[in-house]
Parts: sequence; C-alpha cells; structure tokens
Amino acid sequence: MLRFDPGDGRIVGARNFRVWEGGGEYNVARGLRRCFGLRTSVVTELVDNQVGRLVEDLILQGGVDTSNIRWSEFDGVGRATRNGIYFLERGFGVRGGVGMMDRGHTAISQLRPGVVDWDAVFVGARWFHTGGVMAALSEDSTEVVREAMTAAKRHGVIVSFDCNYRPSLWKARGGRAGSVAVNRGLMPLVDVLFGHEGDVATALGSAAHGPVWHTLESFAPMAARVTAEFPNIKVIASTVRKPVSASRNSWGAFGFAEGQAHEGLRFDELEILDRVGGGDSFAAGLIFGLLSGKGLQWSLDCGVAHGALAMTTAGDSSQATLAEVERLISGGSAGTVR
Amino acid sequence: MLRFDPGDGRIVGARNFRVWEGGGEYNVARGLRRCFGLRTSVVTELVDNQVGRLVEDLILQGGVDTSNIRWSEFDGVGRATRNGIYFLERGFGVRGGVGMMDRGHTAISQLRPGVVDWDAVFVGARWFHTGGVMAALSEDSTEVVREAMTAAKRHGVIVSFDCNYRPSLWKARGGRAGSVAVNRGLMPLVDVLFGHEGDVATALGSAAHGPVWHTLESFAPMAARVTAEFPNIKVIASTVRKPVSASRNSWGAFGFAEGQAHEGLRFDELEILDRVGGGDSFAAGLIFGLLSGKGLQWSLDCGVAHGALAMTTAGDSSQATLAEVERLISGGSAGTVR
Amino acid sequence: MLRFDPGDGRIVGARNFRVWEGGGEYNVARGLRRCFGLRTSVVTELVDNQVGRLVEDLILQGGVDTSNIRWSEFDGVGRATRNGIYFLERGFGVRGGVGMMDRGHTAISQLRPGVVDWDAVFVGARWFHTGGVMAALSEDSTEVVREAMTAAKRHGVIVSFDCNYRPSLWKARGGRAGSVAVNRGLMPLVDVLFGHEGDVATALGSAAHGPVWHTLESFAPMAARVTAEFPNIKVIASTVRKPVSASRNSWGAFGFAEGQAHEGLRFDELEILDRVGGGDSFAAGLIFGLLSGKGLQWSLDCGVAHGALAMTTAGDSSQATLAEVERLISGGSAGTVR
Amino acid sequence: MLRFDPGDGRIVGARNFRVWEGGGEYNVARGLRRCFGLRTSVVTELVDNQVGRLVEDLILQGGVDTSNIRWSEFDGVGRATRNGIYFLERGFGVRGGVGMMDRGHTAISQLRPGVVDWDAVFVGARWFHTGGVMAALSEDSTEVVREAMTAAKRHGVIVSFDCNYRPSLWKARGGRAGSVAVNRGLMPLVDVLFGHEGDVATALGSAAHGPVWHTLESFAPMAARVTAEFPNIKVIASTVRKPVSASRNSWGAFGFAEGQAHEGLRFDELEILDRVGGGDSFAAGLIFGLLSGKGLQWSLDCGVAHGALAMTTAGDSSQATLAEVERLISGGSAGTVR
Amino acid sequence: MLRFDPGDGRIVGARNFRVWEGGGEYNVARGLRRCFGLRTSVVTELVDNQVGRLVEDLILQGGVDTSNIRWSEFDGVGRATRNGIYFLERGFGVRGGVGMMDRGHTAISQLRPGVVDWDAVFVGARWFHTGGVMAALSEDSTEVVREAMTAAKRHGVIVSFDCNYRPSLWKARGGRAGSVAVNRGLMPLVDVLFGHEGDVATALGSAAHGPVWHTLESFAPMAARVTAEFPNIKVIASTVRKPVSASRNSWGAFGFAEGQAHEGLRFDELEILDRVGGGDSFAAGLIFGLLSGKGLQWSLDCGVAHGALAMTTAGDSSQATLAEVERLISGGSAGTVR
Amino acid sequence: MLRFDPGDGRIVGARNFRVWEGGGEYNVARGLRRCFGLRTSVVTELVDNQVGRLVEDLILQGGVDTSNIRWSEFDGVGRATRNGIYFLERGFGVRGGVGMMDRGHTAISQLRPGVVDWDAVFVGARWFHTGGVMAALSEDSTEVVREAMTAAKRHGVIVSFDCNYRPSLWKARGGRAGSVAVNRGLMPLVDVLFGHEGDVATALGSAAHGPVWHTLESFAPMAARVTAEFPNIKVIASTVRKPVSASRNSWGAFGFAEGQAHEGLRFDELEILDRVGGGDSFAAGLIFGLLSGKGLQWSLDCGVAHGALAMTTAGDSSQATLAEVERLISGGSAGTVR
Repeated sequence: MLRFDPGDGRIVGARNFRVWEGGGEYNVARGLRRCFGLRTSVVTELVDNQVGRLVEDLILQGGVDTSNIRWSEFDGVGRATRNGIYFLERGFGVRGGVGMMDRGHTAISQLRPGVVDWDAVFVGARWFHTGGVMAALSEDSTEVVREAMTAAKRHGVIVSFDCNYRPSLWKARGGRAGSVAVNRGLMPLVDVLFGHEGDVATALGSAAHGPVWHTLESFAPMAARVTAEFPNIKVIASTVRKPVSASRNSWGAFGFAEGQAHEGLRFDELEILDRVGGGDSFAAGLIFGLLSGKGLQWSLDCGVAHGALAMTTAGDSSQATLAEVERLISGGSAGTVR
Repeated sequence: MLRFDPGDGRIVGARNFRVWEGGGEYNVARGLRRCFGLRTSVVTELVDNQVGRLVEDLILQGGVDTSNIRWSEFDGVGRATRNGIYFLERGFGVRGGVGMMDRGHTAISQLRPGVVDWDAVFVGARWFHTGGVMAALSEDSTEVVREAMTAAKRHGVIVSFDCNYRPSLWKARGGRAGSVAVNRGLMPLVDVLFGHEGDVATALGSAAHGPVWHTLESFAPMAARVTAEFPNIKVIASTVRKPVSASRNSWGAFGFAEGQAHEGLRFDELEILDRVGGGDSFAAGLIFGLLSGKGLQWSLDCGVAHGALAMTTAGDSSQATLAEVERLISGGSAGTVR
Repeated sequence: MLRFDPGDGRIVGARNFRVWEGGGEYNVARGLRRCFGLRTSVVTELVDNQVGRLVEDLILQGGVDTSNIRWSEFDGVGRATRNGIYFLERGFGVRGGVGMMDRGHTAISQLRPGVVDWDAVFVGARWFHTGGVMAALSEDSTEVVREAMTAAKRHGVIVSFDCNYRPSLWKARGGRAGSVAVNRGLMPLVDVLFGHEGDVATALGSAAHGPVWHTLESFAPMAARVTAEFPNIKVIASTVRKPVSASRNSWGAFGFAEGQAHEGLRFDELEILDRVGGGDSFAAGLIFGLLSGKGLQWSLDCGVAHGALAMTTAGDSSQATLAEVERLISGGSAGTVR
Repeated sequence: MLRFDPGDGRIVGARNFRVWEGGGEYNVARGLRRCFGLRTSVVTELVDNQVGRLVEDLILQGGVDTSNIRWSEFDGVGRATRNGIYFLERGFGVRGGVGMMDRGHTAISQLRPGVVDWDAVFVGARWFHTGGVMAALSEDSTEVVREAMTAAKRHGVIVSFDCNYRPSLWKARGGRAGSVAVNRGLMPLVDVLFGHEGDVATALGSAAHGPVWHTLESFAPMAARVTAEFPNIKVIASTVRKPVSASRNSWGAFGFAEGQAHEGLRFDELEILDRVGGGDSFAAGLIFGLLSGKGLQWSLDCGVAHGALAMTTAGDSSQATLAEVERLISGGSAGTVR
Repeated sequence: MLRFDPGDGRIVGARNFRVWEGGGEYNVARGLRRCFGLRTSVVTELVDNQVGRLVEDLILQGGVDTSNIRWSEFDGVGRATRNGIYFLERGFGVRGGVGMMDRGHTAISQLRPGVVDWDAVFVGARWFHTGGVMAALSEDSTEVVREAMTAAKRHGVIVSFDCNYRPSLWKARGGRAGSVAVNRGLMPLVDVLFGHEGDVATALGSAAHGPVWHTLESFAPMAARVTAEFPNIKVIASTVRKPVSASRNSWGAFGFAEGQAHEGLRFDELEILDRVGGGDSFAAGLIFGLLSGKGLQWSLDCGVAHGALAMTTAGDSSQATLAEVERLISGGSAGTVR
Repeated sequence: MLRFDPGDGRIVGARNFRVWEGGGEYNVARGLRRCFGLRTSVVTELVDNQVGRLVEDLILQGGVDTSNIRWSEFDGVGRATRNGIYFLERGFGVRGGVGMMDRGHTAISQLRPGVVDWDAVFVGARWFHTGGVMAALSEDSTEVVREAMTAAKRHGVIVSFDCNYRPSLWKARGGRAGSVAVNRGLMPLVDVLFGHEGDVATALGSAAHGPVWHTLESFAPMAARVTAEFPNIKVIASTVRKPVSASRNSWGAFGFAEGQAHEGLRFDELEILDRVGGGDSFAAGLIFGLLSGKGLQWSLDCGVAHGALAMTTAGDSSQATLAEVERLISGGSAGTVR
C-alpha cells in the first residue's frame, strides 16, 4: 500500500505528504533484504496505474523482488479495483499517532485462490511470511492465504503468521469471533506465530485466554496452551510495548520454543520517531536469527533491536544495518561512528 | 476531491506530494469567492475521516461555505464509502500532463435524491452551477442533479451546466450514448451551457454535430442548432485550447447568446504552469461577468483572462485577483506591480 | 498577526520560513472553532495588502469568521499603517525559544473607539474574549476594549480577559504601573479572568500581591483577594508551567470559582514541539467547558489537555480534536489510533 | 531589507517563504563583490533584532563588508524603529510580478546627517553608488545622501546615482514634483547617472522631457540635454525592458558619454526566472567596466549581460560569474560547461 | 556516480541538494529497464561506504540489476579509493548549465583487467553498451573495456560504444591524440557507434574529419568513411543539438546503416528542464528500437523522442513511459491524459 | 570541508541533503566570530571549483575572514587535488550518528611547508588554534602545523591544540604510535591543550596514561603529569560526554591550570539535536573566556554552555548568542524570550 506521511505535522492541515510503501508482509521482506541481506520477494496484486507504479518504484528501491507482483487493469475510476492507500501521522508526546486506511476494493483483496502459481513462487524459498491482515481482507483472501501456506509446507518452506487483528477488517465477517474461526483454521499450517500482547489471544480465542501478559510469567502459560493445542507451532514470539508517551515507549519481546519461555532485550524509554512497523521489523529480525541458526534468545534480541532501530526513522520499514543491530544486541551505546 | 500533485516531477518516482482540493463545481465556486468576491457554497458529501477533514481544511482556506457539506460515517476501511482522490502531474514541453482518478465508491456518488433539502440551499442564491461529471457518477447522481436543477429553477436561480464528458465514468452506463441520453434529459433545465471544443457535441449528440469547431464560423452554427432545440439555453460558452506544448497553449473562447456568436480574448502562446482547472476558471469568470450585468463579450473576456491566470499557478483553482483579470482584459502587460 | 517560523532552526541563519497566523484572542477563537466545533468570529483591522490578505487566507483556513475584519487602505510603504508580523523560533533542550515582535503602527493599534458596531457584532454571541495585549497597544486600544466589553455586558455576553502582560508594549505608557491602572479599570467588566503565574499579580497590582504561586495553596488566597475586590469576576484560571528544558515542561492549571480553588490535570514532563499558544489553547478549552456547562473542574482539565496538545504541533493554534482532548482528560495513553 | 519570496507560488496562499536580502545600492555592491571580485561595503543602519541579524547573515554571505553598518537599539515592538521588509513574487507568463513594501519607520530612514563619518568610509574607496530610493525616504535621508555625495567628491570618489523613482515614497513629499526638486538638487554631485526608460525623465523633469525612448534615436537627445544642463554627469546609462510576458522580456541598454550614444547587447526574448534586481545588476556590470577602463561600449555590454544573468536566478542579486558574463558578451551559447 | 543537483538554483549559494545517480552506461541501462521494460544490469565497482550504498539505493530504485556491482573496502578517508560524485546545475535561459566532476581515485577507475568474470556476466545477454568515458579513466580501464567488448563478441552480444570525449579525462593520457589512439584501437569491436556532433570526429580522428555536421549532407559522408574503415560498425547514430537557450534547444538525430543515412524526428524549440542525459536516453531508445527489430528509422525516432522526454524531467535518466515515447513518435500533442 | 546532512533521515535512502561547512579549526573560528564577536580568519587551501566556491560562500556567511584561503587550480576531474567532503547523519535515540569522510587528495593535505607567509598571517593576531586532524593529514601537514605554531610563538600569539585523534588518518602513518610521536613533537609549542576523555592519552601516550577519566579525581593526576612533562602547557581542558542515547547525553568538562583542576558546568541529560562540533564549540567558549581574562572556571563554564547550545542546532557550528551562553552559565531556564 501507499502511505501518506505528514512528517512532524498532522494530516488535517497538511499541504505536503511524504510517501512510503508499506504493508505487514512487505515490511518484513524489506527488512530481511536491506538490513539482513537476504533475497526476498513479495507476492501481491496491484492495479496498473500511477499509484501502482509508484508503489513498484518504492518496492524496487526497497530491493525486494517484484517479479511476483500481478498487475491488473485499471478501469480509469477506481470503481472495480484500486490500490490501497493509507495516511499515518506519527504522534508526539501526549498526542498519539493517527492512521486512516483507504483499502476497500483493492486488487489484492479480490485475488482469487487458484490464480497464483505457488509452486513456482516457492522454488528455492526457505521462509514464507503472511498474517491476519491478508487473511481478513475477504473470503477469497483467506483461501489464498490457506493455499499459499499449504503450498509452502509442501515445499518444505517455513511458514510464519503474524496475527495482526484489525477490527475494521472483520466488521463485515463476524467481528472478533469471525476472526478467531478463520485464524484457528489456519493455525495447523503455522510454524512460527507472531502477535503482540493481546493479539494472540484476540486472534485465537480461548486457547490464548487469560490476562493480557506483560511479564514472562503471564506469557509463558499462554504460549504453552497454544503450542499444546497446535503442536505444529514451534515458536511463538510476541512484542511488548508500553507507551510512556508517543515519543517514548518501553519495548521488548517474549518468545516460546521447546517448552521454554525467553525474554529478549528490553528498552525502558525507547525514543520513538515513527513507531509504525516496529512489529514487522521485530519479525524480520527474529526470522533472520532463526534462519541463521542463532537460537531463539539471540533471535529475540535481534528482533527487538531491529524493531527498536526501525522506530528511529520515518516510514514503516527499517533503515538499519546489521552492524547497528549487532551493536544494540551487544549493549553498545549511541555514539557517532565515523 | 483531494489532489496529489508531484510539483515539477512525475507521480511515479515522487516521494513528496503537494495536496490541493479540486472538483469542477468547487473550482468555480472558489474562483467566484476568492477572485471575484462573491459568497459561494458547495453542496457535497464527504466521509468523516482524515481525508475528508483535510479536504474541509482546504475548502475553508478557499473561503467557500462548508455548511452544505454532508458528512457520512467512515467504515474504517474505505469499503462502503470513501472520499475521492486523484493524482495529477503538470506536463512540461513535449511531455503531456498525466492524471489518475481514484473516485470509486465515493460518498457523493452514493448520495440519493430526496436527501438534500435544496429549498433550504437555494434561499438567497442567484446561481447554481453543476455539470456532466456529477451527473455521470451514478444513476442516483443523475437524479440528484436533476432535483437540484429543478429546485434551482423553482427558486429563480440561474442554472449553468458544464458538459465535461469523461469516458471512464460512462463506461458502465452505456458509454457516450448513455451520456448523450442523460445530458439531453437535463438540458431543458439549463440556462447557461459550458463545454470546451468537442465537449458539447459529445455531450449532446446530434444537435451539436458537425466538425469540431476551432473558429467562430464553425462554433456559431452548432450553438444556433443547440439553442434552437433547447430554447431555454440562453448562453453557450466554449473554451478553445490548442497545445503548442504542455508549457505553451493557445487559449481563447467563443460564446453565443441572443443569436449572436462572440469571440473572447485570445492568447496565442500562453505560458502554462499547471493547466488543470483552466476551464473551471473560465466558467467562474464568465458567470461573474453575467451576474455583474457586463454582457457576454466582457464576460467571455473575463472568463478567458481568469482561466489564463489560473493556469499560471499550481493547483486546480485560480489564485488571481480581480485587478489582474481586469488588467489582462484591458490588454495590460506583465510588468511587476509594487 | 503573521508569524514567521524557522522550523527546527533559528531565525538568524534561516533561509526559509513557515508562516502561521497568530494572536492571543484569535488563537482562542480558532481553537473553539476547529477543536470544539463552535462558531467564532474575529474582530480586528488589517491593512489591505499582500500580508493582510495572506493573514485572511490563514484565518479562513482556521474556520474563523472573517466578516468582522475591517480593511484599511495601504499607503504603499507601511508608514501610516501596517500589518503586524512576528518571528518565533521554538527552542530545543537548553536553548530557549526566541521571539521578535514587529507590531508598531498596525492598523489594529490605530482603531478608534466608536468605529466598530459592537451591537451588530454581539447579536447571537455567547462569549467575548479579549485581553491585556489588545488593551496595551495604545490609548485608543484601551478604549476600544472598554467599549467592546461594555457592549458585550449589555448583550448578556460573557466577557473573559487574559492578562498577558508584555513589558515592551507598556514602555511608552507608564510601564507596569500604567498597565495596572488600565487593567484595574477594565476589571469591573470581566466575568472570567485568565493569567499564568505571576501574570495576574503583574496585571492587577496589589490585589494579586504575594508570592508567585506554584501551588494551589498560594493560588487560592490570591484568587480570593481578587474576587473579593472584583466580585463580578466569577472565575479565575491560571496555567502553571515550569520548563525542565525547552523541550520538556511541567504543565497544569489552577482555577477559582464560588470561593473554591481547583487544580486541573498536571503533566510532569510534557514533551513540547512548539510551546507558543499553550495558554491560549488552555483558555479555549476552559471556555468550551464552561459554555458546555461541565463545571470548573472538567473545564480546567479540558483547558490543560487542549493546551498540552497544542504544544505538540507547530504553530500558535491547536490542531487537536475533541476526541483527543477527551482521551487525555480520561487518562488515555498515546498509542496509535487506526 | 529582507525579502520574502514565495518561489513559484503567490504571496497570498503561501505557507513557506524563501528569504533574501535586497536593496538597490546593496545589490550593486554584492554584484561587484561576488561576480566581479571587487571589495565593497554597505553603509546603512539596522535595528539590532532578529530581522537585523538575519539581514547581516545574508550580507555576510554576499561577501559585502558589514563594518559600516550602524546598529540601533530595538524597542521590542517596532514602534520607534524597525527593519524594512518586502514581499515579492515573480510573476509567470501573463501574470505579472507582485511586490509589497513594508518599509515605514526603518532605522535607515531615520538616519540623520552628521552621524556617519563619511571621511572614514571613503578612505581607499574608488566608487560610491546611491540613488533615488534612499534620497526619497525622508528629508533627513536626502541630506544624508547629499553629505555622502559631497564627501565622496571631496575624496575623489566617483559618484553614481540611480534614479529609481518610487511614487509611494514621494506621496508625502510633494509627489513627482517633490522628487524632481530633490533629484535636481543632487545632480551637480553625480558623475554617472542610471535610470531605466522614463525613469530619468521622471526624476529630472523638463531636462529629460520628450517621448519615452525605446530607441537610440530618442535616448540620445534626452541624454544630450541632461548632460548639457549638468555637465558634471559624464555617463548616462539606461536599461530598456519590454515584457513579452512575465517570463520573457526584451532587454538591453543605452549609454551616453562624451557626446556619443551607444547601444549595448540586446536580448529579444530573454527568459526570466526572477526579474527583480536586473537594473541593479546592470549598474554593477557597467561600474565594473568603467572601473576596469574598458570603455562605455564594453561596460554597457557587461551591464546588460550581468543583468540578464541576474534574472535567471531567484533573489534580487546576481549569482553569475565573470566568466559567464564574458561568454555572453562574446556571444556564447548556453551549453553545459563541465 | 552520485549527482548533486541544486534544483533551479546554482551550486554556489545552494544549501540543499537533490541527489540522483548517473553515469553514461547506467543511464542507458535504466532507460531500457524503466521506460522500455527490458531487464538490464550494471557492471561496476563501488566502495562500500555511505555514498556507495546510497548509489546502490538509487540503482535499486532504477530497477537495474545490482548483482554485478563489485564492492571494495573503504579506507575510512577516501585516499586509496573513493566513489565518484559530481555537481550539475541545469542552466536557465542565457545561463548555461554548469558541471563539476570529482571522480579521481574511484574504485571503478582502478578496476583491473582479469577481475570481472565477463563470461558469467554475458550469459543470456543480448546487448553490451559502454563508451569513451569508461575507456578514458585509466590504462587499466581501457583494458577492462577491451576485455569486456571482446567477451561480448565471443558471446554473440551486440556491442555499442558511445564516444563521449571528455578532455579533462585525457589530459594525463596524451590529450585528444591519446583518446584517438585508444578509441581507434577499440573500434574493431564495435557494432553500434554513438556520438553527438563532433564527438565522433574527436574520438576517431581523421576518418571522421571534415566539417562538424549539422545536416544529413555533412553527416552521411563522415559516417560512410568511418564504416568504410571499420566495416564491423553496422550502425552510427548521432544526436544533433543546438541550444537556442539553456531552456530551449533544437534536438534531433542522424543515423547511418547499410550505406544509408537517415534523419530522426526533429524538435525545433524543445523545452528543456534538465538537459543532462539526453544523449544517453537517445541511445536507450535507439537500442530498444534495434533490439525490437523496428529498423533504423523508427529506432532513431524512438531515440530522439526518448531523449526529448528525458530532458523534461530532472535527473540524468528518463522518467518517460513507452506510451509517451510512442505518442511523440506518432506526432501526438502534449495534452493531459486522464 | 563540505558536509552533507540528511536531516532527520539517514544517508542511505536520502534524496535531499542540507550542506554545511565544517572542520575542527574552522568551527572554533566561526564560534568565536558569530557567538563571541571576535574577528577570526581561517588559513587553508581549497581547489577553485564549484565545491570550493560553495565552501567559501558558507564561510562568508559564517563571518570568518576568507583572505587567508589559498585557491589551487582544478584539474577538471579531482585526480590531482580535491576539496574534502563528508556525510554525517545525526542519530536518534538508540541509533547512533553515522559519518563518512571523503578527504583523500585534498588541497590542504598537499600544502607544503614554506608556502604560507605565517608572519603576515599573525600580524595583529592574539590566538592560533590548530590540532591533531591537520597534523595527521600528511607529513607535509605535520610540518605546516609545526611552522605555523613556531611562527605564532614568535609573534607572541597563544597556541592551542586539539588532540582529535582519528584512527583512519593515522593508518598509513604508523597508527596510534605514529600519532603519539608526531603529537609529542608538537607539544613543546602548545599553550592550551584540548582533548576529550581518552583523547589526550591517545594523543600523548604514556604521559597521559592511566584509566580514562570521568571524574575530576582521575583527570587531575593525568593533567598534572602532562604539564609536568610539558611545562609550556598552561591549560589543559577536556570535555566529558556520556551518551544516554543519541538524543540525550551527559555533558561537562574538566580543566587544569596552575596546578589546579576545575570542573565546569554539567548537564545530566542534555537534549541533542546534532552532536557534531560540540567539542569545537567548547574550545571556542573556553578560548573566549581566557582571552577575556575571565579565568579558567568561568571559561570552562562558557565552553560547556557554548558546546551545549551548539548541539541544539543542526550543523557543525554553534548558532548561539553570547546572551544565551551567559544565561546558561548563570543557571537560567529555557523559557521563551520575546
């Protein structure tokens, strides 16, 4: 999607907007490519008009492979099919961030199962990341997610899923209950489950019940229950964020694997420039760690550090380098490097 | 609608956009208010979200009354109802301007007849301007236009209509033939008809047939035929533009009233910064002239001059002053005033 | 007045300036209109030149009615009469904000009593807000303020007055003593009195004497003494600000009514983007509360919250929404809303 | 003075302004310093506030010596004394440039004779340039100009004077007749007289009467009459500009010395970015030529070329290099140099 | 290389620069990729520092494959090896463009023969484009160009060479004579030879002697002589540009193949925003035409049109679309498309 | 040198850069001129091309005398001699600042001893400041520094030296050991020695050994040892910085003179906008104090305060005023001044 960003001002009253590309899965792919150096590709559908080609221009800059983008014809008005846009302002101090999604009738929400040749997509792939936003767009979208996950499993590709519950998307599909039903149906295909505090519970319903966790103590039993019900889920990873203000957050993460709960790096008063995409950058860092065979503890640290760095720059995606991530992991301070 | 303008760059590749408000009827209302000092109001419907409120902020700046804007609830995704946006780049030299409309599912296109209290709207009003874009949006829109025009006539308000044929909007409603049928049905309610070369013929079909006019000689008989068929149409006014390049156009206008054809000011190599909205500013100038009782010749000159000045600034609307319009009408040169 | 804002840089050395409109009474009117949805109007006089029309453009954007602005002729040099401008930079950390006023010979400072038809102005009005800056501009200005307040009382319009002592303006009129004399003369016409710590004492002299208050304990007796002397004053409201740095302030307010002192919300380390206009936005919030019949405690909270939000954006006026104010009042955190 | 420049937009509606320094004499000094490499100094008085120090910052960047700037105390409001500002927009095509001066009560207009130590100023100087704007500011200003010119003559410094008739400045001093009287009184002190078409006649009255010249034939007799009356005037130089549009002007100059009239380079359709300061840059080029002993013909060419180049950049002053001036003089084309 | 672009201002005096990537061969590759949709790759060496990674970011955005970029280690000072930068301002009207190259000690100039695995590079390739700038950098560079061309021929890849004579680069290598010797040595490997007027003669010496051609009549015999001497050269293509001013150029091209000279589209007063890269975009268009089997005439038209469009946008590369190129070829005007 | 500053973004991914001038000695000279009002001059050599002239433009704006800048000829490519550039981004929160120097083959690094007429330079001078970066550039540079210091002593000019150890510059000259040898050789010419924590020890080797000091207790004995070995060193001054994050640092300084150690002002959580140049601004403040005869304690406070203020604005140099420095010294808070 195309993001309009009013910088340090507000959307209403703005006369100039910076544009960025964004989208949960894409942000992960871009982070893995630009910060961690892996080759990644995004599978989506865009309408072939000026907005679509601008999004392509941004994805090219992000280094993510565009050959799996499907292009659909533009009807000249945006009635039949559109490209999604959104507006997001940062927040500052006591003023929270504000977002507005304009994603109705997008090409990707109308993508039907059976159209993408997933077998071709997954040749040579090691990891497939998707999540609850894509699954929510429409009934077709749910099925597209399911066929993609199934194909990934068939090719031995690790599947991760980020819960990302968005009430507005489920309004027309049974609300939270509808979401739980859909998500639970997809869980048997998941290897690595992401979701910030509360998100897992919201997405999975009873299995994840209990108080919202903010401590390892409350996270661990929830994670144990979920992996008990879905033993295919090998890793659960959850970010924890508590805003002191829009400009300062506490930020950390918990992880669960092989019956063990871990806590990643924690920042107590992380200074925030633009918090959007912190969770996606966490996912990218954790995936990199796991793909590198570094173990869950290092992977959690990597995810937290990458997410923290992503929130020090504007835009949804990280602009960090691996060296910076590693410096944070090893406790380095923020002096100038020259 | 909200316009995204990449300045002197192109949409694809842009990272920053200037925003403007725009829309045919609105541009006319803004020109009449800010250049000519008349009080004007816009009747429309916007979704109450960040984009809608940004458009309101822009309309407020334009000085146009906002009390007749209806606000509909946002569904959080833009599926049920949205605010229209568009992207327009200027063109330069041999490179033409490029536009992209994203106006599907807008609140205004879903406005039903019987909802607006037109009798309240027209209290104290002298002129009502609408046109072929609004009429094209949906069948409901056509009926809304019809009820508005009918109410205007009932209140003794002069009705002007700008043909503004847009093929993309008529694709789903019978193409050009559908447009002709709808427009002809509305013609008996029209007092003043606007339409650039070819536009009148396209909008009205046979009555306006014949070669596309570029001279007074070809314009006059067409206008005579149209007013013969629709004797209620007291004035027909048409701009004539011929691009030398995107940066230089020849620009002028013809008018027809009381059986007489007139030609307005003509600029042979008008230097263009942003041509969008030239026709709307022409309409504003002509309406001002007629409302001021200056006669068709002066009104045409006023329209051409106002349109010419509107194309020397960015954005869809004029930023000219009445003094500048008058200086152009009286043949003044472009020295610096201080 | 027109504000020149060098953004996050300094005035000296700047090559670009953002412009805003500002002025104590105006900021209150704009806040009441854009954040709280009330209809407001500004009564002032501007010179009809480019600066005046730019200020009008900004006021239009602010949604404040411009029909009570008087326009005086420009002499082409700014000798007889001018529009006021000022330069304000934000400050950052240990570097305080810096301002420079260029308001000599303004049209408004030369407005004579007997010129404005206050009876027409106050038709349908519920509240009139003015203050010590306007009263200080010239002897005529004092009398204009007096006649306006008198007319307001005559129409049953509530009158509020913000002390806003500015030493530079009183230099030629007897300094602080001159100010005290003028202000005390106006007090019998005041219903609601605003003034930050120290400001009330400076403006009113002895009645407000005693140590500058920073606690409810020191505020209450001062307020009691003032209302004892001027029993017409039904509410006294005072903001309290203590800079930790230019970027972090403690911020709160005290109020006094019916013999009772109240303390509003308090923020200990409020993050500040641009502190200018915080007091005016406090006044707007409090006036909204009182006009809504919410009582002094809620009104104080509303004023503090609105003022706090106003300081998170650039420019003198608030860009907050009522929902954001209410969220702060109810203790909400600064997460992103989407 | 400080110039506010809205770029390619208009003042009204602008939200951002670029600032430049400007002023007739200063522009000449800056051109001689930065394009032609001579050391120059500006004698003026500024108020010591943020605007004054910003102007100093700009003058420093211009390379002009600031040690002869007098600094007067700021009163905190701009009532007693101010720094001048002005707003200038460029114009484009049929839309002319627009300017607005806000120069009342400036420090320089209040400078009294007897205050500047001109004998110290002129030590080592070769040329003194002043003109009709400075002489018009006030009666004191006229006397300051006179004492400066007298001192210059005493030191053997060449004196040039640019007529620069500004009606708004003379309104309070007898209009055009007042101007003629003052200017004629100063003429006996002038060595080199500048003034665009019409300007000399306006400034000097009868001696310069006759039709406004646009040809060498009409210029020559006027110049002959003026030098006959004031034989001390050794050179008269006049630019000729005819706007095709605000973006294209014809541009050239005539000169007269030793009984001979000369015509400089002529550009028929000079492309203009910002025409302000073209005449001042002409003066700088001509002065450089004369100081370099190149004769009037080359000096005229140099002035026209420098003025032409100055109008291809924003701001009042030239940003050209001597090599570029020489290339134009020798008829070079506008290819890229690298 | 990294280009610093001061927009419509000048380098000296600028405080902000837009950055672009550029380089003759790269511009061709980017044009073929983004306008014409072919997959292209750039073979070069960059130093792995912030500038290098910024250039990579720009190349990614350009869509050109980066896998053939070699990365050399940074020494922390830029002494051993650097990345090239340059500054280019556009010119306007009578003011020509100005450029400044800072390309000493670049990594690419130190690339040795034998390092790049050209056989791997050319797998699947159809065309290899290089030229006189790369060949000029150093003796090693010449040999790298030779080995690349030789390898290309071995793989049946078409080789094009753009003369691009730059005196500053040959200063240390025997001046123009040195260039002629080197270029002639490479000619036997060339299939398609590019070079604007005069460039071919400068690059090849005697064979190309004779008057600089500006007409088909003078171009044809030169081309005939060159192809007679180097019969391997199947196509010679030369742009012709004559500046009316920096903002308006006449622009066209000649081509020669199979003994026949052709003239492409001609624009008499092409409006220019940024002329840099026009020749490279011409090459891209012509290569596309030849690769598409469209014949030399269409290919010349395509090159001229693509070059013309490239000069209507800022930056070295084209931002045009194939549809726009085709519209120009078929004589379309510059109206707005929406 | 010319600094490219990506604002609040990162270098990689930036499309626009702000430029500043910078360089250790220059920053001190600029601070002394613009904040403290002393006349200062910079002795250096620049290549006469666009970058050199842009740097001159920036230095002129800085008010520093440019008459001691030597201009060397440009070779058109930057092979023989160049101007230095660098890229510096600020850092934010957990993300540290990043810098990249491109200073190989600069004109100044090739300046030979015997070329500058130091006797002319030092006429009328009171202080000469240089340091370890200049001394490191090349063997010639070391000798130039030595001859300058020697000449300064000869003229009774106070000599200060800032250690500024940069590993990258010493790589080719024996690393840290080479640096120690060179620096120790220069110490006998030093009156005032600057160096942040660790820097003195790194620069001087054994004499400064011992634990890196962060307390007065560890600083004092080191300073005592150094002054015992080099009794000519009358003052040692060292800043102490500890980053809480890139946006918040603790900041202070120690000084040693006449056997006494002093501690300057300390800021525990100084808010940082751009930390670059803090040490240079400290040096400027301290030099001003000593030149004003205010004693070491006040001078340290002045240095710390000036350095603190310098870090609240973008760019390498301070934009503070003396009044602001004095307010910080006397413990003033950061309210708005107007």
